[in-house]
Amino acid sequence: MSDSALSIDWIAVDWGSTRLRAWARSRDGGILQRVDSAQGAAGLAPEQFEPALLELVEPWLTPEKRTTVIACGMAGARQGWIETPYSSVPCRPLSVERLVEAPVVDSRLRVLIVPGLSQSRPADVMRGEETQLAGVLAAQPGYGGLVCLPGTHCKWAELQEGRVIAFRTFMTGELYALLSQSSVLRHSLLPDADSSDAWDNNVFVDAARHAFDHPEQVWAELFGLRAQGLLQGQTAANGRACLSGLLIGAELAAARTLWQGRKITLVGNIGLPGLYLEALHALDIEVRALNTQRTTLDGLKQVFDLVVTDNRS
Amino acid sequence: MSDSALSIDWIAVDWGSTRLRAWARSRDGGILQRVDSAQGAAGLAPEQFEPALLELVEPWLTPEKRTTVIACGMAGARQGWIETPYSSVPCRPLSVERLVEAPVVDSRLRVLIVPGLSQSRPADVMRGEETQLAGVLAAQPGYGGLVCLPGTHCKWAELQEGRVIAFRTFMTGELYALLSQSSVLRHSLLPDADSSDAWDNNVFVDAARHAFDHPEQVWAELFGLRAQGLLQGQTAANGRACLSGLLIGAELAAARTLWQGRKITLVGNIGLPGLYLEALHALDIEVRALNTQRTTLDGLKQVFDLVVTDNRS
Repeated sequence: MSDSALSIDWIAVDWGSTRLRAWARSRDGGILQRVDSAQGAAGLAPEQFEPALLELVEPWLTPEKRTTVIACGMAGARQGWIETPYSSVPCRPLSVERLVEAPVVDSRLRVLIVPGLSQSRPADVMRGEETQLAGVLAAQPGYGGLVCLPGTHCKWAELQEGRVIAFRTFMTGELYALLSQSSVLRHSLLPDADSSDAWDNNVFVDAARHAFDHPEQVWAELFGLRAQGLLQGQTAANGRACLSGLLIGAELAAARTLWQGRKITLVGNIGLPGLYLEALHALDIEVRALNTQRTTLDGLKQVFDLVVTDNRS
Repeated sequence: MSDSALSIDWIAVDWGSTRLRAWARSRDGGILQRVDSAQGAAGLAPEQFEPALLELVEPWLTPEKRTTVIACGMAGARQGWIETPYSSVPCRPLSVERLVEAPVVDSRLRVLIVPGLSQSRPADVMRGEETQLAGVLAAQPGYGGLVCLPGTHCKWAELQEGRVIAFRTFMTGELYALLSQSSVLRHSLLPDADSSDAWDNNVFVDAARHAFDHPEQVWAELFGLRAQGLLQGQTAANGRACLSGLLIGAELAAARTLWQGRKITLVGNIGLPGLYLEALHALDIEVRALNTQRTTLDGLKQVFDLVVTDNRS
């Protein structure tokens, strides 16, 4: 038994489509160790989940006890480890009675998967972000307002009195990837090997402002990114900044009916969430930004606390 | 010499990104034969264009004379047979002095490539559609109004007094392909092998109407096509009809400032152009539809007539 296993009380897991992240944690929520791998849920058959997890967390296990693993994200999808039925909104982001125990061979493991949320009108689903919403509530108890969770599929969720009232998913991150890497725009947007041109934040902000004011016109403006490359020597970096601004600006406009007149909390402050923060600031929209990993870890701790309480009662 | 070569005066070529089409024609524009292949411009290096063309049209050539080939489309692109500089609008769709002669090895060939059009503000380009615009003017001499040319990249062009005044490109066709085949939506939109569900035109028209009225909301509604498949058993065919309607409806709304209060001519009446026709009818927008191939052939005939006149003068 390793020294670290002595003090590890449970394991928090965020199982995304493309990454698997695990944290060894103490009972009070402290982080003892962190590991991750590229064994995302999208590439695994159901029987491959346990080996993928063991490969990462084996050193944390001891034969004397069954260690509880709390996993959120795509492990609970239909093609995941075990399908975990959605909880439908309005509801609390997490409920201990809806956790699903995954089948395991290794007797040192007890794996509980957090269910995602669904909404019937308009039809929508999330898996993983419900745990971050619980983390937002942990950081801001009683928070009422919107939460924006940027990602490949950005979610906007409304919280009131500890419950998720409604939410909406935007494909902005995936649209950006498809347009910049797989569409005709790639000829003007993919970085040249010998190019050293850098992202210009003014280009991003101007595009976001424009799209926010005229979201319906963005449909007419995408191809212009190719033409500006061909005719006006627009650099690839400026093309990408402009595309990103157009798509995020259009999203903020389309989400306006959700957030207008309400508080906004943004989960994340660098990378893609950093761009949302930049755009929101440029539009004079007030927002509080939280750390992404902290929010996920706070949410998983909420689940663990619920499980402990439930086992005691 | 084959019999057919005796009466062939010239060859019309439409060299798209993915297809090569050629027509053997008489001086008066009649069609004697038609051939095509999958040797689109996107897959060819410059030196491969002549062999690809010869493979198709060799039987039409005779050693006694140099046969004129008029080619429109991507053969004139930067990565095509020979780069053919754009004519910038406002201008006539075709001008004989801007045709570019492609380098050939075979002395039986004289290949003239039609230049595309460019626009500086907003930046835009077209290659191939300028020939169809000339075809529209041949079918409707003196036509003033908008011309809509659906395709992977749909073009809306304004014609006045024989000139192209302005135009705009929409990536609607490519967005549809990317979203339905390469995004997360594919899980709900790709046809099942064992599925027999059919396209429902009402679903398409309802989505087009909705998007036309709320184009800015379409950004918020794309992911719903995945969720409706997961939660509400929406069929893949209905998902595709809805996506197509949303994107075409959003395009018609974004193009509104171009077409409102003007005549509209649509190039094409089946396949993708047929969907535009359907959506325009549903929105009570008056439109005249022309046959796509006829329009291209009329346009190429206009070039040939200009060349003949030019050689005589």
